Amino acid sequence: MAKIVIIGLGSGGFPASLAIRRTDPDAHITIIERRSYDMYSPCGMPFAIEGIISLDKLRFSLPEDKQTTKLLEHEAQSINPAEKSIAVKSLRTGEIITIQYDSLIIATGAQPLIPPIKGAKENLDKGVFTLHDLESAHRIMEYAGNSKRAVVVGAGPIGLEIAVALKERGLDVAVVEMLPYALPRALDKDMAKLVEQSLEDRQIKLIMKKMVSSINGPPVESVTVGEETIETDMVILAAGVKANIDLAKNAGIEIGRWGIKTNSRMETSIKGIYAVGDCIETVSLINHRPTVMQLSSAAYRQGIVAGTNAAGGYDTYEGALGTYVSLIGNLEVGATGFTGDFAESSGYMIISGKARGKNKPEYYPGSKDITVKIIADARTGRILGGQVVGEEGAGARINVISLAIKSGMGVYSLSQTEMAYCPMVAESYDVLNKAADFAVRKLEKGR
Amino acid sequence: MAKIVIIGLGSGGFPASLAIRRTDPDAHITIIERRSYDMYSPCGMPFAIEGIISLDKLRFSLPEDKQTTKLLEHEAQSINPAEKSIAVKSLRTGEIITIQYDSLIIATGAQPLIPPIKGAKENLDKGVFTLHDLESAHRIMEYAGNSKRAVVVGAGPIGLEIAVALKERGLDVAVVEMLPYALPRALDKDMAKLVEQSLEDRQIKLIMKKMVSSINGPPVESVTVGEETIETDMVILAAGVKANIDLAKNAGIEIGRWGIKTNSRMETSIKGIYAVGDCIETVSLINHRPTVMQLSSAAYRQGIVAGTNAAGGYDTYEGALGTYVSLIGNLEVGATGFTGDFAESSGYMIISGKARGKNKPEYYPGSKDITVKIIADARTGRILGGQVVGEEGAGARINVISLAIKSGMGVYSLSQTEMAYCPMVAESYDVLNKAADFAVRKLEKGR
Repeated sequence: MAKIVIIGLGSGGFPASLAIRRTDPDAHITIIERRSYDMYSPCGMPFAIEGIISLDKLRFSLPEDKQTTKLLEHEAQSINPAEKSIAVKSLRTGEIITIQYDSLIIATGAQPLIPPIKGAKENLDKGVFTLHDLESAHRIMEYAGNSKRAVVVGAGPIGLEIAVALKERGLDVAVVEMLPYALPRALDKDMAKLVEQSLEDRQIKLIMKKMVSSINGPPVESVTVGEETIETDMVILAAGVKANIDLAKNAGIEIGRWGIKTNSRMETSIKGIYAVGDCIETVSLINHRPTVMQLSSAAYRQGIVAGTNAAGGYDTYEGALGTYVSLIGNLEVGATGFTGDFAESSGYMIISGKARGKNKPEYYPGSKDITVKIIADARTGRILGGQVVGEEGAGARINVISLAIKSGMGVYSLSQTEMAYCPMVAESYDVLNKAADFAVRKLEKGR
Repeated sequence: MAKIVIIGLGSGGFPASLAIRRTDPDAHITIIERRSYDMYSPCGMPFAIEGIISLDKLRFSLPEDKQTTKLLEHEAQSINPAEKSIAVKSLRTGEIITIQYDSLIIATGAQPLIPPIKGAKENLDKGVFTLHDLESAHRIMEYAGNSKRAVVVGAGPIGLEIAVALKERGLDVAVVEMLPYALPRALDKDMAKLVEQSLEDRQIKLIMKKMVSSINGPPVESVTVGEETIETDMVILAAGVKANIDLAKNAGIEIGRWGIKTNSRMETSIKGIYAVGDCIETVSLINHRPTVMQLSSAAYRQGIVAGTNAAGGYDTYEGALGTYVSLIGNLEVGATGFTGDFAESSGYMIISGKARGKNKPEYYPGSKDITVKIIADARTGRILGGQVVGEEGAGARINVISLAIKSGMGVYSLSQTEMAYCPMVAESYDVLNKAADFAVRKLEKGR
């Protein structure tokens, strides 16, 4: 009977456990998790902070299984690949036990970066917060209840979702971003403008191309941004995350620039040890270069692949596109593949097609603006990326572009793709087809 | 200066006019249309009957253009290909004029089939109706206002949308369908059951595998269905449409089994004469055999292709999938490609994968059931069709499957496709991926 251990029960570890069970019904699975509860939905936390759903609802349980041992409130201390064993510490009792494995899946995730801001570490959890688990969400909600002003560091998806959430709770909110525009990993500047406009319409202050140099307190009373002092009661650090690699590194597993290195079967440099999710470095499905893609959907697929392989099956992970959607206020923001800027910095000559339209005919109830941008290789027309911003249907359209990139499709084929029409649901000629048409015309002009 | 004539201003003729203008800014365009108004949205009519939008809102105008002559209330009587001329009759004055063309686009559409039911023709527009233009929609609404009961003949999308509309207006409604289940061209029986259940929940009576043999009246007071007599005040015939081919046929243009024959440039058997939309026979994008696909989205693309070619450009239409969505009550119903039954009758050995899930996590506001079915070739895994039924997101997912079929993708690739996740918008592992996973497992078992 195979003994398979999973370290970390999240978007990678959970599907791994399902895939193991499917591949080998007899395998014994041990799951090691630091939390005192099974699972939760990290991406739901900003909406819980906003009050749309209760924080409790974000918790859910792994289905019970006699062949599975769950060690909650346990921490993997070290891996001994030679012995195929793990030293595991009970966070309740301090006791350390040794667990043997035939296969091991590392799904240790990532943790928030604490930027080198004076006063950040000192005031952590006392006016300065990161959002990284349910407890931290709870602390933010509690502190926000007694605060009038908040500064969010970082205009990525999580930073912006939290900014909206705190604004909706009645706080004055400012967002400080080092880079020149919002969502710089997902969007180009022209598309980011749509998001920025909507945030400004909500009276959220955006301070771009600036860094917070110090957080002043305790108690936190202001931040210094360049020459300016901004009064605030609390600071949320949403400046990205870093992969949790120490456990793997100390076991001698090869680490890349972004995280634990894996092959296409999600196996690390040590045979029988797999790694998935936010702790790994993956490859881009577009140019097959190493990249980091800390998204739940990617972790899920990686988990399936690792679980299948760890249990003696065969599956591969081809690489990540970074297909993503976020709800920022009333705007769905979707992106996949390369932004125009990133594509150019990766050596591509690009064209793009952009169209603004409605998700359904203007005269039907629920008709909303939607803007689609498609980025493609200027010589071949091959689609490299897509961005969609609108009140409804951005995620739906980004999935179509995601599949188009995956299949190696060019803009002409995308423009010809048959999209379903019904006035209550969609336009007769979708804005996505139109954006592709515009890209086709640029391609033809270039020839 | 090229003279281009378009006969019929609808989902095919309209984009043709845009494409002509784009390809040749100097071309003179003449549009011949029987209606007294520019354009309208036929697919919106059931929702106008229901009262969701006003019938007036379905009308809209072609943008003005000095180089375009619109002949409303005019009917093309005959085409003389040798002379490159058309005899056109003014429906207002009866006057007949001759119009010369360099290129001609036939977009004459289709008209409702009147099934050979005793009493159908005799009572037309007097208790028996078809829905084929705004005037007919108006007549149905008026008659329904004085009716208590309605029988709809045909359980296709239009029949079911009208059935729901009349039910919502307070009538008792029964639907009679010759075939064994609802939406037989779009769905397999198992998926149709979901739609039928929802209609039955609305107290709409479904009578399957039966034909109406006579409509009794005037005034219409009942229909005879087999042995049964069903009392009714009105009957809606929604038993399909037939292509308007007479004009083309009389001009000597080749006609196929389903409509006017065209090549991949949308050109008919006579050089310089193109045809698009509901009046043509097209080819299936899956097996490249002749088929009929009377959908607005297909017509739109065909219109672009014909317009571009008619104006001296070059574009091709690859064939149709029949990607479709409909809103039947509170259910979005989407379909693309072949149904399982149709695939089998076309010679394919098939597998299918079906998954039921939620459009977004269960604990988030707006979480709704959704069921996805994928049909694939049993030997190669190549996707042949998809069906999605749910309160929200069916159209969005059917577009992804549509693109997967177009790109020749197999179920394994579809299962690996990265779909965007955000709890407010989508599940972390989409039901579409799951359906593909199930199909993959059947494929593997078969090997």
